[in-house]
Amino acid sequence: MNTSEKIYSGKTKDLYALPNDNILLVFKDDVTGEDGVIDPGANTVIGQVEGKGRKSLAMTDHFFKCLHAAGIPTHLVRLDLEQASMEVRRAEPLGKDISGKGGLEFICRTRPWGSFQRRYQNYIGDTASTFDYLVEITIKDDERGDPLINDDTIVALGLLTQQHLEQAKDLTRRVCRIVEADLRDKGLTLIDMKIEIGFVDGEVVVIDEVSADAMRVMDDEGRVLEHGILYEQLIR
Amino acid sequence: MNTSEKIYSGKTKDLYALPNDNILLVFKDDVTGEDGVIDPGANTVIGQVEGKGRKSLAMTDHFFKCLHAAGIPTHLVRLDLEQASMEVRRAEPLGKDISGKGGLEFICRTRPWGSFQRRYQNYIGDTASTFDYLVEITIKDDERGDPLINDDTIVALGLLTQQHLEQAKDLTRRVCRIVEADLRDKGLTLIDMKIEIGFVDGEVVVIDEVSADAMRVMDDEGRVLEHGILYEQLIR
Repeated sequence: MNTSEKIYSGKTKDLYALPNDNILLVFKDDVTGEDGVIDPGANTVIGQVEGKGRKSLAMTDHFFKCLHAAGIPTHLVRLDLEQASMEVRRAEPLGKDISGKGGLEFICRTRPWGSFQRRYQNYIGDTASTFDYLVEITIKDDERGDPLINDDTIVALGLLTQQHLEQAKDLTRRVCRIVEADLRDKGLTLIDMKIEIGFVDGEVVVIDEVSADAMRVMDDEGRVLEHGILYEQLIR
Repeated sequence: MNTSEKIYSGKTKDLYALPNDNILLVFKDDVTGEDGVIDPGANTVIGQVEGKGRKSLAMTDHFFKCLHAAGIPTHLVRLDLEQASMEVRRAEPLGKDISGKGGLEFICRTRPWGSFQRRYQNYIGDTASTFDYLVEITIKDDERGDPLINDDTIVALGLLTQQHLEQAKDLTRRVCRIVEADLRDKGLTLIDMKIEIGFVDGEVVVIDEVSADAMRVMDDEGRVLEHGILYEQLIR
């Protein structure tokens, strides 16, 4: 058997089951957004950007190498930039919903920005303040706008044990530190980022991608970089 | 000086500064709701219910006595049911916003219900499941619908220290257990409740009220009690 079967078609990636039980992620050029404006956090595909899939993969390749160098495991087996595809180990996402889909997303913030700033506007004393790698966790649920969930609720709903939750939060902070340091070397400042985490053989590892789609970055003049620009600055 | 100065007019209570530096809370008959339906969680006053203020105060009196019996401190000094007023020590609410107003609300849940159920619908395996006194914390902000906030963010924004946060959560669970036990004696089941907590002389104490307005209760047939009925059942 050499054929691979398409098992899922996501907004920006297609998934294929490989004969060796691994998964092949194929990065697409589709971009999500709202009202014609590209926004990786949006839930609707609004068009395509030539080469976007390969760029996301190249950036993921770069950051996964940084993570591996720091001893942080990911699901990556090998990747093929030409084909915009990445072979990964089969992972069980953390905190699936009752239909076996969904999952948790781990956000790490170095300062108040975006939805966080809108939500807690009246409680943020100094908007120039920085956070010591603040973690927020949301559940994947497009229909309900990916609601925030607190640690106690994650455990109460049986989505994760307290121990795995702590491991996942620790992993999130470590990944954020590494990405932040790498960007700082390039004169850029990481504002916040989002990762997905899964179990592979019972181990908590980084899954999916670490690309411009999942981070907010500013230059040394405090301007938040548009994602296309960020790709240009980070991958030649 | 015997005069007292009105310092705040809330939706269901007016506050007066007393000459002895305590505060007088006067419970009003105003009820909040939406579209003509009474809902203590709503932010708009839609009318008045004769005797409602005194009933809320009587219920608070009852539950505060239960709390005191269990060694849990409140801000209560004395109350006057006839006048629908309660003299309390001046408390600093936990987690004020940048204008010195607002604060944190502590919700304790014994099972998934209401906004919790709507929010996490796809992740609640068994809706008949119960929780071991699950705490959620929201910030007071009418305009933004009192958003949920996680523990790490409360500490990162400097709203509470980790130690005070743990104390407040522990207090919330203890209050919930006591109210639940009292209701169980009356054949009723507490679903969830909300309290406010403040500092009085550096000590973490229960403030505001503990009344039907701040809890969801069902009878032995699983029917959630309308608030008027709950008052009737709990205070003669």
